[in-house]
Amino acid sequence: MQPSGPVQESAPSSRRSKITPERAQELYTAVLDLLREGGYESLTMEGVASRTRCGKSTLYRQWGSKPELVVAALRCTRTPTLTHIDTGTLSGDLHEAVRAIDAASNRDTALMHALSHAALHNPGLLCALREALIAPSIAAIDAMVERAVARGEVAADNPATPFVAAQLLGVMRARPLLEGRYGETGFLTRFIECAVLPALLTPVPPPGS
Amino acid sequence: MQPSGPVQESAPSSRRSKITPERAQELYTAVLDLLREGGYESLTMEGVASRTRCGKSTLYRQWGSKPELVVAALRCTRTPTLTHIDTGTLSGDLHEAVRAIDAASNRDTALMHALSHAALHNPGLLCALREALIAPSIAAIDAMVERAVARGEVAADNPATPFVAAQLLGVMRARPLLEGRYGETGFLTRFIECAVLPALLTPVPPPGS
Repeated sequence: MQPSGPVQESAPSSRRSKITPERAQELYTAVLDLLREGGYESLTMEGVASRTRCGKSTLYRQWGSKPELVVAALRCTRTPTLTHIDTGTLSGDLHEAVRAIDAASNRDTALMHALSHAALHNPGLLCALREALIAPSIAAIDAMVERAVARGEVAADNPATPFVAAQLLGVMRARPLLEGRYGETGFLTRFIECAVLPALLTPVPPPGS
Repeated sequence: MQPSGPVQESAPSSRRSKITPERAQELYTAVLDLLREGGYESLTMEGVASRTRCGKSTLYRQWGSKPELVVAALRCTRTPTLTHIDTGTLSGDLHEAVRAIDAASNRDTALMHALSHAALHNPGLLCALREALIAPSIAAIDAMVERAVARGEVAADNPATPFVAAQLLGVMRARPLLEGRYGETGFLTRFIECAVLPALLTPVPPPGS
């Protein structure tokens, strides 16, 4: 099927393109930095061109429009923050996840806040934002819970298991707004210990029972 | 102490002002509508003037700048969504809270997403956003938990009590981004039942014990 509208070059590998994958990655990094600094509405193709010393016409030829450029930048920035975590216990995994998200927080949370309003008005952007920043974290946390079920730490029919990812990600992403009261060190650790794990862990039967 | 910078009129009641409290409220409503539609960066004094048929010079004379106008609009829009809830049980209160936040969700969540990025770069705006949309909900949910403790539903030393507000608000505000998986009806109700209440409620002792 021919795309409607003006014909655009679809990939950095097209013949007229001078953009190497390394150069594309530089541009994407600049786009995400500009988003974190100024938000989505303030981002302009001019601003990207000037930050990256790239011709505006090259940007338009390669990516077509600002939303498409942002979506491409998001798709190339999937950071596997949580996928490597496997400590052997659910408690260990969740604490490690909290530390990892906290460490990536300035970067990822700023980006999420920069894009969330625009994403609610732009389905393609919402989809790219979910796939870049949200879906991988949900999948990694679900995998932690599944391993805990497989080890017998959590009952397979425990009704709280589907909510762990939403609980963790919701609270962590909302933190900059809640902060003051919830910003102090240790909040997330105590949150895991006091609010998340108690609904999940199967009580250990007393010895000899 | 004299304010630094150009002297500004501080209140709608000042002598030169023609703006009645009712007219100010109309302007605030328009400001918040424009924020929900286009986000913070896209909001301009021109846009507010045109939407409200108010002179731009009047807006500047009265509010000084766009951030001050937004802060004033937020301060006058505190909606006591949750304060009236008191069903007699914690479970009843939390379910009612979820319904109330859900009903206000298009309005409040859109506003929060519109402002969250700008608020992270502007302390006055962050403070106004917290006071308008976040602090009243936190206080109302904390009051629900306190009543549950007073009734003996929740142990006074239950370590999960400080986290209920963050948990509920975090998940509810993150929903538009998580959605797909978490958007279906009943998600929040099951979340309360399966993940929030189990960490809170004191097991009822068997009769006769």
